[in-house]
Amino acid sequence: MKKVILDVDTGSDDAIAIMMAVLSGKLDILGITVTWGNRPVEDCVENTLKVLELLGKRIPVYRGCPQAMVRYLTRQRNAALDKDGISITLDGEEYTVHPSSFPLPEPREKEQDEHACSFLVNTVKESKEKITLISVGPLTNLGMALRMCPEMKDHIEKIVIMGGGVHKGNITPCAEANFYHDPEAAKIVLESGIPCDVIPLNATHSAEISLDDAAELEATGKAAAVFAASLIRQRIDALEKMKAGNGYSDAIHDALAVASLLDDKVIETWETKAFDIDINGGAGDGALIIDDRMNAEAEFPVRFAMKANKEIFFDMMKEMLSR
Amino acid sequence: MKKVILDVDTGSDDAIAIMMAVLSGKLDILGITVTWGNRPVEDCVENTLKVLELLGKRIPVYRGCPQAMVRYLTRQRNAALDKDGISITLDGEEYTVHPSSFPLPEPREKEQDEHACSFLVNTVKESKEKITLISVGPLTNLGMALRMCPEMKDHIEKIVIMGGGVHKGNITPCAEANFYHDPEAAKIVLESGIPCDVIPLNATHSAEISLDDAAELEATGKAAAVFAASLIRQRIDALEKMKAGNGYSDAIHDALAVASLLDDKVIETWETKAFDIDINGGAGDGALIIDDRMNAEAEFPVRFAMKANKEIFFDMMKEMLSR
Amino acid sequence: MKKVILDVDTGSDDAIAIMMAVLSGKLDILGITVTWGNRPVEDCVENTLKVLELLGKRIPVYRGCPQAMVRYLTRQRNAALDKDGISITLDGEEYTVHPSSFPLPEPREKEQDEHACSFLVNTVKESKEKITLISVGPLTNLGMALRMCPEMKDHIEKIVIMGGGVHKGNITPCAEANFYHDPEAAKIVLESGIPCDVIPLNATHSAEISLDDAAELEATGKAAAVFAASLIRQRIDALEKMKAGNGYSDAIHDALAVASLLDDKVIETWETKAFDIDINGGAGDGALIIDDRMNAEAEFPVRFAMKANKEIFFDMMKEMLSR
Amino acid sequence: MKKVILDVDTGSDDAIAIMMAVLSGKLDILGITVTWGNRPVEDCVENTLKVLELLGKRIPVYRGCPQAMVRYLTRQRNAALDKDGISITLDGEEYTVHPSSFPLPEPREKEQDEHACSFLVNTVKESKEKITLISVGPLTNLGMALRMCPEMKDHIEKIVIMGGGVHKGNITPCAEANFYHDPEAAKIVLESGIPCDVIPLNATHSAEISLDDAAELEATGKAAAVFAASLIRQRIDALEKMKAGNGYSDAIHDALAVASLLDDKVIETWETKAFDIDINGGAGDGALIIDDRMNAEAEFPVRFAMKANKEIFFDMMKEMLSR
Ligand SMILES: [Ca+2]
Ligand SMILES: [Ca+2]
Ligand SMILES: [Ca+2]
Ligand SMILES: [Ca+2]
Repeated sequence: MKKVILDVDTGSDDAIAIMMAVLSGKLDILGITVTWGNRPVEDCVENTLKVLELLGKRIPVYRGCPQAMVRYLTRQRNAALDKDGISITLDGEEYTVHPSSFPLPEPREKEQDEHACSFLVNTVKESKEKITLISVGPLTNLGMALRMCPEMKDHIEKIVIMGGGVHKGNITPCAEANFYHDPEAAKIVLESGIPCDVIPLNATHSAEISLDDAAELEATGKAAAVFAASLIRQRIDALEKMKAGNGYSDAIHDALAVASLLDDKVIETWETKAFDIDINGGAGDGALIIDDRMNAEAEFPVRFAMKANKEIFFDMMKEMLSR
Repeated sequence: MKKVILDVDTGSDDAIAIMMAVLSGKLDILGITVTWGNRPVEDCVENTLKVLELLGKRIPVYRGCPQAMVRYLTRQRNAALDKDGISITLDGEEYTVHPSSFPLPEPREKEQDEHACSFLVNTVKESKEKITLISVGPLTNLGMALRMCPEMKDHIEKIVIMGGGVHKGNITPCAEANFYHDPEAAKIVLESGIPCDVIPLNATHSAEISLDDAAELEATGKAAAVFAASLIRQRIDALEKMKAGNGYSDAIHDALAVASLLDDKVIETWETKAFDIDINGGAGDGALIIDDRMNAEAEFPVRFAMKANKEIFFDMMKEMLSR
Repeated sequence: MKKVILDVDTGSDDAIAIMMAVLSGKLDILGITVTWGNRPVEDCVENTLKVLELLGKRIPVYRGCPQAMVRYLTRQRNAALDKDGISITLDGEEYTVHPSSFPLPEPREKEQDEHACSFLVNTVKESKEKITLISVGPLTNLGMALRMCPEMKDHIEKIVIMGGGVHKGNITPCAEANFYHDPEAAKIVLESGIPCDVIPLNATHSAEISLDDAAELEATGKAAAVFAASLIRQRIDALEKMKAGNGYSDAIHDALAVASLLDDKVIETWETKAFDIDINGGAGDGALIIDDRMNAEAEFPVRFAMKANKEIFFDMMKEMLSR
Repeated sequence: MKKVILDVDTGSDDAIAIMMAVLSGKLDILGITVTWGNRPVEDCVENTLKVLELLGKRIPVYRGCPQAMVRYLTRQRNAALDKDGISITLDGEEYTVHPSSFPLPEPREKEQDEHACSFLVNTVKESKEKITLISVGPLTNLGMALRMCPEMKDHIEKIVIMGGGVHKGNITPCAEANFYHDPEAAKIVLESGIPCDVIPLNATHSAEISLDDAAELEATGKAAAVFAASLIRQRIDALEKMKAGNGYSDAIHDALAVASLLDDKVIETWETKAFDIDINGGAGDGALIIDDRMNAEAEFPVRFAMKANKEIFFDMMKEMLSR
């Protein structure tokens, strides 16, 4: 079984991604490291533990960095963004894409004492077998770990990353939220020389999950599927309220990243391109910049998923979550 | 007749644009202001005068700014770019997209004493009729003039601009050369509140002119058409040598901007979008950032040409240049 | 007589500077160009005309740029500053260092039609005799004119500039207001290669004018001196209210710049140093950076006044203003 | 005894600082964490182990980050600096302030397996007694550790930092090398809310150690003193060769930081000031910006040593190193 470490900021789509990874039975999950992003790291840790409790699965959970490496250090750079795009309050009621506290039973397990970054460095560095990392939040923990110990590189099979958008943004016109929240970390990871499978907005929005799909999940009656259905509905609803969604379907970003590792048929188109990530704090801050020019040459072993197969994706999701 | 002022950095495609504007007979060209860009401003002035001499046409030519407003002030920001993408030397021979000195007879007319920016401010401010500006080089002269006198706005019908790329770049992965060379000026102009018709790379590359087209132009035997044909061939050749072209056809950017003003059928698709221009000096420096998000709202009266009709474009070019 | 052009953002200390320049009888003032800074450019023009009216002196006044070249183009860079440091409202009453409208009779003269930048370029370029420029506001007009026409350089004797601070700031911890408001323009001017006499905060605060001095001025009973006395008192009062002054004396910055040109004994210490100006929009934005290191070599003919002689300065002020 | 952790980039003055800290007998040194800066981290680790070997002292040594958090990620920001100021080659001979490999016997001890940042986080977080950190290199390890675990703050007595300059620079006109090499880390540490004693260039250059002092150290015949004497001479010589020193004396920066903790009389003047650190990548990059304005209010418990007592400093050095 493939040895993996998951890095998450749970988060609705993170929850579905974790459940698929665990229930797939195909991954030897050495640990789950948690970062900030959708919510403060404490909430993301708690949500992660609750999801594992729901699955009745013991996997060590490590709390990571509570903030981006450096992105929020200046007043100027902070001034760029008005709203986070996660929640909206209308008529006194809050609609959110990512519940701060999942409506699930309290977890019995606690988080580990070791810091996520220390765990990453130690586990990867000492592993004889190469490890695969899956990152579905801001890349802070991975960027920090690679900065601590670049030699980790030799022990990493590849890094599967949900993040970025090829000529697409969500939190800003040109930047996707995971990259935007820690552009320096994203740059460190993608330029590390480690093979990266990047799942950008292009792929995730090419395989949106709908209210009808959520109904199918719920109809299975299985705990994971039912919880996933409720998260999907809540996302679709909140995004519509924020006028950022169509009210019928939405990308379940992080789950597609996990799915791409479990079955490579779920991604129909990969492109290996020269790229950069803007970290200069202006209008392009956090943007993944793809070089489509005729004479561009890719410098790093990074490929971008441009299109996913929605049927395969949803079939995997339904099948695994209803186990 | 529509009163216009042309702002150019002549330049091969500028030359064709000027010839079309003059020979169209539809424009009352009050003056041609010249800036730097393809070549130093002195060369661009000389080339402009030569083109007018070829046409036997007296139009006052005003020398403008010899450099971007502020873009090249720091060593850091200068470090981003290795090459200009205009010329290459192979086996001791230079191939260039933009000849520094056109192989045409010496012009008899001289440039005017007045500075291009002063001419722009004075002419526009005092005009009772609204004036249309056409800018097909870095936007330095226009940005400076608008900074000098924002009240110009009320006397400008619209500004037709060749520049930018919607999710496309040429001089960098994400920036087109005219915007890249003076991003601050581009930002001042596009955010001025004046209606702008932007002709980005998307439109110009959707209507490339080919070697076969050049042959047709040459076959007319008319001076303007023959000169245009030679410029087109030289562009296609130089870009191929730089591995930045297909060796058969190329966008004649500036000419399409003029054409769009002469006949609006040449542009098949316009989009009005929220946008920004990155001026922060990082990887995204000079990028036109388009907001494709569902809830984006355009703040300025700026529309972007996404697709042109090649047949209409070339027919105009051939018909006008062979007059 | 030395031919000069004054560039001002009148402003209390600008007013005193203008009065000294005019009443000195030693300067052939070709024109006064006005920029924004202390107040919007319209107000600064009006204040300038009023001062000339008070002096009964006809000197052409040219309106210049209403804003910095590029400094305020982004939300991020704007976010750095809370307050302008010019005015404060306490208990409903406004205290200001720079009245928006001087309490003086309406001027009979009007501003010129020509733009300040055009006037600068044309007058300097065509002058056979070298001209001295005196700049006591943000350097926008001069920076723009030099960008339009770098050849102006050969016709300029020197530029006397009130601005910057050597290891001192006022509007920010490290930046003086004139440089801060248009750092790019300051960089263009100081790095133009034209000899510059910079009068920074170090010199101006080494020769503060006090309430007692103001009383002396008023006691002369002469219009210019009495008006100057009222401006000086108002400055001292407003700065104390803002907790930015000692309540007894204050630098009359711009007047010292003019004085330094009229009598070089007023500056006791000049230093020629390698320098830079930060234009990167962070904490150091607009800072004059002086290189005090042992192996630093000055690249430009720019000297900084480090200390002034207060007695000589005030004697000049009193003598000239009471003419 | 005060529990301390030393963070170093050994380095000549680091070596003297370590020897003083160890030989003082007043500090319970829990570990020495090593970072990059003067030399690559591998060399700094090796040099540190050699110094401990010379002292016959077993203290665990932890290798830390081999590079700044984010400072060197872009080509633009890298372009600012020509030379490092550490070494110069003249007539084929290299003169260096910081030997890459100390001419000392090979160490018998090895570095620890644990990463410096993990060690810092774990040791500090779990300590019941508050720990004092001493940082005399770029602040990468500390910045990273604080980013990993801001709760460390409650277990830190204070941080003694050699770095910065109050209106003084060395590696650039306005930035000191330790802050310049990792400005973001410096900002994280100084703005952490933890009490910081900063020993900037102002203090270290107010107490320079001379060739005569080196002779005195050597005359003691003790190994540590003799080694220190050789390092001091080498520094003075190399700086003179680089025209950055007077050829007679030099600041032994890091040793003063340790001394300030051992005997507070060695610092004659402390100032608590509002400050900022520029991280924007321009001319002011890495500058410590001190707010000397009348109405500035210090926001953080950070004090800056402005002047040291050379006699006390050298007496301590001589006395301790000759034990
Ligand atoms: Ca996530
Ligand atoms: Ca052009
Ligand atoms: Ca002023
Ligand atoms: Ca050190």
